[in-house]
Amino acid sequence: MKYTYLGPEGTFSEAALLSVPGADDAERIPSVSVPAALAKVRDRSVDAAMVPIENSVEGGVTATLDAIGAGDDLRIVREVLVPIRFVLIGAPGKTLDDVRVVSTHSHAWAQVRGWMDEALPEVDYLPSSSTAAAAVAFLDNEAPGYDAAVCSPIVPEQHPELNLLATDIGDNVNAVTRFVLVTAARNGLPRPEPTGADKTTVVVPLPEDSAGALMGLLEQFAARGVNLSRIESRPTGEALGSYFFSIDAEGHLDNLRMRNALRGLHRVSPGVKFLGSYPRADGKEPLLDTHHSDEAFSRADEWVDNL
Amino acid sequence: MKYTYLGPEGTFSEAALLSVPGADDAERIPSVSVPAALAKVRDRSVDAAMVPIENSVEGGVTATLDAIGAGDDLRIVREVLVPIRFVLIGAPGKTLDDVRVVSTHSHAWAQVRGWMDEALPEVDYLPSSSTAAAAVAFLDNEAPGYDAAVCSPIVPEQHPELNLLATDIGDNVNAVTRFVLVTAARNGLPRPEPTGADKTTVVVPLPEDSAGALMGLLEQFAARGVNLSRIESRPTGEALGSYFFSIDAEGHLDNLRMRNALRGLHRVSPGVKFLGSYPRADGKEPLLDTHHSDEAFSRADEWVDNL
Amino acid sequence: MKYTYLGPEGTFSEAALLSVPGADDAERIPSVSVPAALAKVRDRSVDAAMVPIENSVEGGVTATLDAIGAGDDLRIVREVLVPIRFVLIGAPGKTLDDVRVVSTHSHAWAQVRGWMDEALPEVDYLPSSSTAAAAVAFLDNEAPGYDAAVCSPIVPEQHPELNLLATDIGDNVNAVTRFVLVTAARNGLPRPEPTGADKTTVVVPLPEDSAGALMGLLEQFAARGVNLSRIESRPTGEALGSYFFSIDAEGHLDNLRMRNALRGLHRVSPGVKFLGSYPRADGKEPLLDTHHSDEAFSRADEWVDNL
Amino acid sequence: MKYTYLGPEGTFSEAALLSVPGADDAERIPSVSVPAALAKVRDRSVDAAMVPIENSVEGGVTATLDAIGAGDDLRIVREVLVPIRFVLIGAPGKTLDDVRVVSTHSHAWAQVRGWMDEALPEVDYLPSSSTAAAAVAFLDNEAPGYDAAVCSPIVPEQHPELNLLATDIGDNVNAVTRFVLVTAARNGLPRPEPTGADKTTVVVPLPEDSAGALMGLLEQFAARGVNLSRIESRPTGEALGSYFFSIDAEGHLDNLRMRNALRGLHRVSPGVKFLGSYPRADGKEPLLDTHHSDEAFSRADEWVDNL
Repeated sequence: MKYTYLGPEGTFSEAALLSVPGADDAERIPSVSVPAALAKVRDRSVDAAMVPIENSVEGGVTATLDAIGAGDDLRIVREVLVPIRFVLIGAPGKTLDDVRVVSTHSHAWAQVRGWMDEALPEVDYLPSSSTAAAAVAFLDNEAPGYDAAVCSPIVPEQHPELNLLATDIGDNVNAVTRFVLVTAARNGLPRPEPTGADKTTVVVPLPEDSAGALMGLLEQFAARGVNLSRIESRPTGEALGSYFFSIDAEGHLDNLRMRNALRGLHRVSPGVKFLGSYPRADGKEPLLDTHHSDEAFSRADEWVDNL
Repeated sequence: MKYTYLGPEGTFSEAALLSVPGADDAERIPSVSVPAALAKVRDRSVDAAMVPIENSVEGGVTATLDAIGAGDDLRIVREVLVPIRFVLIGAPGKTLDDVRVVSTHSHAWAQVRGWMDEALPEVDYLPSSSTAAAAVAFLDNEAPGYDAAVCSPIVPEQHPELNLLATDIGDNVNAVTRFVLVTAARNGLPRPEPTGADKTTVVVPLPEDSAGALMGLLEQFAARGVNLSRIESRPTGEALGSYFFSIDAEGHLDNLRMRNALRGLHRVSPGVKFLGSYPRADGKEPLLDTHHSDEAFSRADEWVDNL
Repeated sequence: MKYTYLGPEGTFSEAALLSVPGADDAERIPSVSVPAALAKVRDRSVDAAMVPIENSVEGGVTATLDAIGAGDDLRIVREVLVPIRFVLIGAPGKTLDDVRVVSTHSHAWAQVRGWMDEALPEVDYLPSSSTAAAAVAFLDNEAPGYDAAVCSPIVPEQHPELNLLATDIGDNVNAVTRFVLVTAARNGLPRPEPTGADKTTVVVPLPEDSAGALMGLLEQFAARGVNLSRIESRPTGEALGSYFFSIDAEGHLDNLRMRNALRGLHRVSPGVKFLGSYPRADGKEPLLDTHHSDEAFSRADEWVDNL
Repeated sequence: MKYTYLGPEGTFSEAALLSVPGADDAERIPSVSVPAALAKVRDRSVDAAMVPIENSVEGGVTATLDAIGAGDDLRIVREVLVPIRFVLIGAPGKTLDDVRVVSTHSHAWAQVRGWMDEALPEVDYLPSSSTAAAAVAFLDNEAPGYDAAVCSPIVPEQHPELNLLATDIGDNVNAVTRFVLVTAARNGLPRPEPTGADKTTVVVPLPEDSAGALMGLLEQFAARGVNLSRIESRPTGEALGSYFFSIDAEGHLDNLRMRNALRGLHRVSPGVKFLGSYPRADGKEPLLDTHHSDEAFSRADEWVDNL
C-alpha cells in the first residue's frame, strides 16, 4: 500500500495516517494540498489519502468538502479522530519575550487566539500554508520573517532540536479533528463491512433554494430513522443561494434503512453522490426503533412482493 | 361467473352489478346484508359481490368498510359509480295526500328529507332494511304499516304495476354512490392490470392515537407523490380513540411509487391490509411530478444497486 | 335550566343527562332525533342538549357530527361516558324460545349480533327508530310486529312491569358511548374553565382531497404539541372525495399551544369551526414537552415583541 | 456617521461601503479583521461596519458568521452585492514571465486557480492576510518574498503607479460577494422599514444532532410560507456534531409570517438570535400564497380572539 497525506511531515494528517494499521511501514508521500492529495488517488499514483474533513472548532474543511465531492470516483473507507494540541516553536535562540511575529496556518491561528491574547498580546500574525511548514522552516536556518510558529506536538517529537517555547496552547482542550482515508471507487480493494456502528457520507445538491427543498432531503433520512451526525452547506459556485450539502448519516449502505434513504435522496436530487460507508471512529451504535430495523424493512418488502 | 349483491332485487347494488360486462347473463343472487354478501365470497359460493362503499351524501358505508377490512382474503377488482335517484311508491290505491307514514332505508331517508319537509311535512318515518324491501312489500298485498316507500327507480321499472307517486325526490341531484366488486384474494381469476388511472384500497390500523401517528401514515403516501381520493376513520371497536383508516390511494400496486408507499405503510403499521388495485371509474389520471415517476424510482434503485 | 336529549325516556342519552349535576331536578324534554334536539338549542327553547357523538364499537354518530358542525353557533360544554349494556325485553307472556323477530335501533343491533347468533340464530331483525321505542311499545299492548326488543337496562328499571328475558347481551363488555352536552354559543352562561385535562372540538373542511392537504391540517396540531383524541372524516355532501374532519384535540382554548394551533388551522382552512373547550371525562392530562408549555409560548412572544 | 470596513484600503469591503449613500464623505476606518471591525461597533467607536458574509464561490465567510453570531447586540441594516473581479499586480519592473511566487488572501487564490494553472502553471503560492495588503506592499519598495499579488481592481485604481500585469483573472465571471452593514442593536438609529422585498438574518443553535432536529427548525419557516435564501452550518466549537445554523429568511420582522416563524423558532431553540431585517439588494419580492399573507394571519388572530 502507498499513502499520501496533507503534508509536510509532522502535520496532524500524518499523525492520523500513522494510526492506520500497516501505514507505519508503508510508503507515505506528503501532498501540498488536499486537492493534490486527492488527485494522486484519482490517478492511482497512491492507494489512499488521509485528509482532514472536519474540525470541532473551525468547522468543515472546505477544501476537502469541495474536492471530495467534485467527482463520484472516490470512497471514504475509514475515519480517524485526532485530538488537536498545539505547541509554540521559537526561532533558534529566541525566548518567549522575543516573539513579535507568529506564523501558522489560519485554522491553527484561530485556535490559539485566546492563549496569544494572554501570553503575547502584542504579537503580529503571518499566515502559512501549513502548521508544520511554519515550524520546520527554522531547521533550515532561514530567517523566515517571523519569530515563532504554532504547530502540532509531532513536529518537535520528530525534530527534538527545535526550540520548544510552550506546549498545550490550544484554547479548547477538547478540540479534535476528523480525518478521512480516501481511496478510488473501483480500485479492487475490499469495501468496509458493516459493523453495526457505521457512517455513510453523501454529497447532495439542493434542488432549489427553499426551506421546503432542504426539508425534502432531510425527510428521506428522517422517514427511515436515519440520524445525521454532520451536515454542512457548501456553495456550488454557480450563484449565491445555490448549495450542495455534505452529509454524514449513521448507518451502512448494507443497512436497508440506508439503502432506502439513498433511493429516496436520488429521486429528489438525482445528482447525489455516494462517498462511502465505513466504521465510526467512536464505535457508537445508532438507536433504532423497531420500524427502522432491517427486519422491518425485509418484512415490508416481502409483504408487498407477496401481494 | 356467479354474483351476489346487496338485495333484494331492485336495489342500487343490483343496478351497479348490471353495469359489469357479462353480469346480465350471469347468475345473480341477492344477499340480505353486506356481511352476508362478503361471506358468500369468502366461502366461494359466489365469485364476486357488488356492495356499496361510499355515498357522496351519507359518507362511507360503515357496514362495508368494517366487513371488507375484517380479513385479508378479499380483493376489490372494479368500482362502479351509480347516480342516486329516488322515487316514491304508494300503497295500492293511495295518493300523495293519503301518505301518513313512509318507510325506507335510513340512508335513503336522509337523502329525501328536504323533499319530504316540503311535500309531506307531517309524515312519520318507519325504518326498513333496504329501499327495495320497503317498496316490494306492496306487491304482496301486505298491510306493512306504512303508506309509501322511497326506493330506486329500478323497482318500478321491474314492477310497472307499482303505484308511482313521485320521481326524482332526492335532495341532491348530484348524489352518487360508489360500489365495489369484491372477489376472494386467491381465486385464480386474473387481477386488474394497471391502466394509468387506477386506485388502490388499503385498511391501516392507527398505531397510536396521535396527530403524529396519523401524519406518519399519510407521509408514506405524500413522500412518494401518491394522492388519496378517500380517507375514512373507523373505530376498531376495542376502545374509544382506537381507529383504523380505510384509504383509497391513486395508483396501482404495479406502480413503483405505490409499492414503495405500501412498504413504508407496512413498516409503520404492520397490520395494514391490501384490498386491491383496480381501474378508476372516472378514468382520471394522477398528476405526477418527475420525482415520482416509475422511471425516477427505477433509476434510484439502479443507482443504489450499483454502488 | 331546561334540557333536551335523544329520547324517548329510557335511552342512554337520558342516562348521560342524568349524570349532569342538577339535571335530575331540571326540566328534561326528549327529542325524536339529534337534529331536532340541536334545533331546540339553537332556537333557545332549551338551554342544552345531551346527544351521543361517538361509540367505541360503531364509531362516530354521523347524525350528530353532521348536525353539530352545520352552524358555528353551538358549543360543547361537557362530555359524558356511558358504559353500554343491553337487555332483551320480550312481548308480554313470551319466553326466549318464542322469539322469532327482534326489533331495536340498528346501532344496538350491531352490538348484540354475536349474542343473537348463539342464543337466537334463526331470529329476524326489524329496525326501530330508537332502542327505547322498540321496548316501550310493549307497554301499550300493541302487537308491534316483533316478539322482543333490545334496549338499555334503564328501560326495565323505569318500567319494572316489562318482561325481561336476558341481561348483558352486548358483545363487547367494554363498549362505551360518549355523549356531549351542547349549548348555544352566546347564551350568557359561563364557559368551562381550563382544568389541565381538557378537550377542544373543531370541524375543519379539507381544502383539497390530497394526502398533503390533510397533513397540512394535522401539522398545525403536531407542530404545537397538541395531540388528537378523535379524528373522523365526513363527506361534505357536495361530491365524492369532498370531506370535512371532526376533531377532538387535547387542551383548552386558553392554552397558548391550542390558540396557536387554531390560528394555524384558520389560515390553512378558513372555514374551520370551533365547537368548544371542555373538561375531559377521564381527567387524563396531556404529556407536554417543554417546547409546548404555556411558558415556552409566552417567552417566545415576549422575545419577538422585544426585538 | 463613522464607518469601519475589512481593510486595508482597496479591499472589496471598502468598495461595498462606498456604495452606501453618504459613506463617501463619512469617516472610514479600516480594520485588520472582521472580529476587530465588529468590536469597534460593539464598543461604539464606530456607527457601523461593512464586512463580507458570503461569497458565491467560496461560501460563507466563516469569520463573519462566527463573530456576528457571538452576541445578540448586533443588527444587519443593509446588504450590498459586489461583483468580484481580480487583477494581477507585479513587483516593480517585473513582467508576467518573471512571476515565480504569487501572494494573496486564500479566498482570492481559490478563485484564480484556473487562470493560474493556464498562465502560470509553475507558480508558488504565499498566503497573505488580505488581497489589498499583498498588492500595496509593492508601494513600499519592500521585497516581500513574492513577485506578484492578486487583488481587486480598486487597488490599481487608487494607486495607478502599480504594475498591472493582468485583469479579469477570476475563474468565475459571475462571482459576487455579499457584504453586510452591521450596527449595534440599540444605537438609537432608525431600523430599516419593510419594503416588500426584505431579508431577516438569524442564528439558531441546533438543539440536537439529528435530521429531525434540523427539520424541526426548518418547519418553523416552511409552515409559515417563509422561504430561505441562505442556510449555513457552523460548529459551535464545543464538540464534533454540535452546530448552529446561520439563516437568511425572506421577509421582514414586521411581516406576520416572519413574527410567527421567529416565535416558533424560539420555542424549539430558545438560544436563537435575531440579527436584523433589511431590504434585499436584488429587490426580489417573495412569492406568497394566500395562506401566508399578513391578512390571513390577522384574520386568524382575530378569529381566535373572538372565540
